[in-house]
Amino acid sequence: MSGKPAQSRGTEGAAAFPVDDRGVAARLFAILDAFTAPPASSLTLTAIAQRTGIPLTTVHRLVREWTSWGGLARQEDGRYALGMRLWEVGVQTPTARNLRTIALPYLEDLYESTHEHVHLAILDGGDALYLEKLSGHQAVRVISRVGGRLPLHATGVGLVLLANASNEVIQEYLAGPLPRFLPQTVTDPEELRRRLAGIRSQGIARMSEEMTAGSSSIAAPIRDRTGQVVAAVSIVTRTTPRPSPEQEQAVRVAAHGVGRALGYRRATG
Amino acid sequence: MSGKPAQSRGTEGAAAFPVDDRGVAARLFAILDAFTAPPASSLTLTAIAQRTGIPLTTVHRLVREWTSWGGLARQEDGRYALGMRLWEVGVQTPTARNLRTIALPYLEDLYESTHEHVHLAILDGGDALYLEKLSGHQAVRVISRVGGRLPLHATGVGLVLLANASNEVIQEYLAGPLPRFLPQTVTDPEELRRRLAGIRSQGIARMSEEMTAGSSSIAAPIRDRTGQVVAAVSIVTRTTPRPSPEQEQAVRVAAHGVGRALGYRRATG
Repeated sequence: MSGKPAQSRGTEGAAAFPVDDRGVAARLFAILDAFTAPPASSLTLTAIAQRTGIPLTTVHRLVREWTSWGGLARQEDGRYALGMRLWEVGVQTPTARNLRTIALPYLEDLYESTHEHVHLAILDGGDALYLEKLSGHQAVRVISRVGGRLPLHATGVGLVLLANASNEVIQEYLAGPLPRFLPQTVTDPEELRRRLAGIRSQGIARMSEEMTAGSSSIAAPIRDRTGQVVAAVSIVTRTTPRPSPEQEQAVRVAAHGVGRALGYRRATG
Repeated sequence: MSGKPAQSRGTEGAAAFPVDDRGVAARLFAILDAFTAPPASSLTLTAIAQRTGIPLTTVHRLVREWTSWGGLARQEDGRYALGMRLWEVGVQTPTARNLRTIALPYLEDLYESTHEHVHLAILDGGDALYLEKLSGHQAVRVISRVGGRLPLHATGVGLVLLANASNEVIQEYLAGPLPRFLPQTVTDPEELRRRLAGIRSQGIARMSEEMTAGSSSIAAPIRDRTGQVVAAVSIVTRTTPRPSPEQEQAVRVAAHGVGRALGYRRATG
């Protein structure tokens, strides 16, 4: 799922830490990280030990600690999965919850007027991090999911976020690896730079079959009242028929609506 | 937010544990728990120490561990809040994510046909735990939120979940405290027992002004293919005008749709 590792998060695993230098806290966190990189809906104790480099006996003890709190849950098949208490605490994270709450009515409008996947994403650790995804029955197959990360250069929301990032962030991103997912993925740094300039001037990003075959995306920036881009909203449609001007307008309206609502919240407390 | 403490979760705080008997893991978890009971969007180190009974110097050290991983984040004002890494990992909890993903298209249909708050909740630790909430611009003010808990006897989804729980769970719930939130809250165990029987026979719960003034709720059970109730779906409307038969039918249709989709998923893998 991760396009680029988020280097700030210390999830590099065993190689980066001699085992004995990691304290209990770091080992507990490494066990959670084992479920996300790459994503695993459940793991055996042995798999957790392999992914973390933590000795099996220690894994056993720390998994028991997580399980007693509810951060992990033992399944009927004996494997372990992330637990409901972790979900319950995690969804209360104010950054994600506040933005989602303010944005939701506008995302619902956008869903209702298009019936396509609706995405809300922020820039985080060099990735597009998906805060929300609304979908109906008929929406095209996509790989995005809430809490998932996708690369900036190959997604609509990612291009919008990158286009409006600081020169430093753009520079660093374009200097890094730019994987090609499909023949149409733009991976040339100079071409991407021109594309980002176009997105900034038009206030919208359009892309087609650059991440998932058969799907297109239209994305627009959400600005707070200082004008800073804090998030991006998109719809993902089938490539055929081509996204319509009305759909593009609906994405712009939703992005502006969220931005106005953010400003209002900030201004009034 | 919690109507009843979820006694299985070991979140009773300092009183239950002599401080020195708690290991590093239990203390780390207690620090997260401090943000949820009662919910606090941010806390000072001193407030965390007070809520957990952990000495301030230890709080300082453990908060630094959480912050370095991203489970807590230091705000500009020096207070701490739950962090984005915790959100990112928490939303990947399969129990919540799978049910939400399967249910979402039906919840969207229900939202679109009613434009009221749409709730998806499960029974957890004697509470209704809200897995999803969709809302538009005009929806009535309610106190539910994703990840929040509300009491079973005073919410539509809660009554549906309680009505379809085991006799043991019903017995235990009705023997416990049944707080009255508004004059119309039903708190008499015998009257509640008759109400639960009515909900089981009608397959729907209706309530009005029992939790929040001015709001009514219609809720229906979601059954898996074995017939077991695994969740409940509801809409929350204004009390005036009264919810319509069409709205009631829309709630039933959504609940059946999710149930069928759950069965299909289980049957096909």
